[in-house]
Amino acid sequence: MKAKVYVTLKQSVLDPQGKAVQHALAALGFNEVQGVRVGKYIEVDLGAVDKSKAEQKIKTMCEKLLANTVIEEYRFEINNSC
Amino acid sequence: MKAKVYVTLKQSVLDPQGKAVQHALAALGFNEVQGVRVGKYIEVDLGAVDKSKAEQKIKTMCEKLLANTVIEEYRFEINNSC
Repeated sequence: MKAKVYVTLKQSVLDPQGKAVQHALAALGFNEVQGVRVGKYIEVDLGAVDKSKAEQKIKTMCEKLLANTVIEEYRFEINNSC
Repeated sequence: MKAKVYVTLKQSVLDPQGKAVQHALAALGFNEVQGVRVGKYIEVDLGAVDKSKAEQKIKTMCEKLLANTVIEEYRFEINNSC
């Protein structure tokens, strides 16, 4: 089981890294870009577990380590492929 | 048009951040985790452009700024939602 976890800052939280990327893109000529937000993308290889258990485990991992739930939100997908 | 860009290290490149996360998860009791890879997730708001132009622009942004194509690979999705 492989899980793909996406961690992003909450909409209400300022994203200076995203702003920096937006300005860098504008400096390269992409003035039409109206907003950039940067987050994390994490692939976790869980080995052989069933899907419901995998979901539960990934949720716990996100709450405990992968995301700071005060300022970040997360979502994840779980795939069968090894 | 909104684009979601995923930037990951190539499979052949060592990922020390992923290793650190894996060890931290093991320390929390998740010993079954067999591998972790950490990448970037970037949301770009392109304003009103048509899809084929948006695709072309995002590709150029990735090649020029968002990804280091020597060690990283990228993929992206483009959505109509504003």
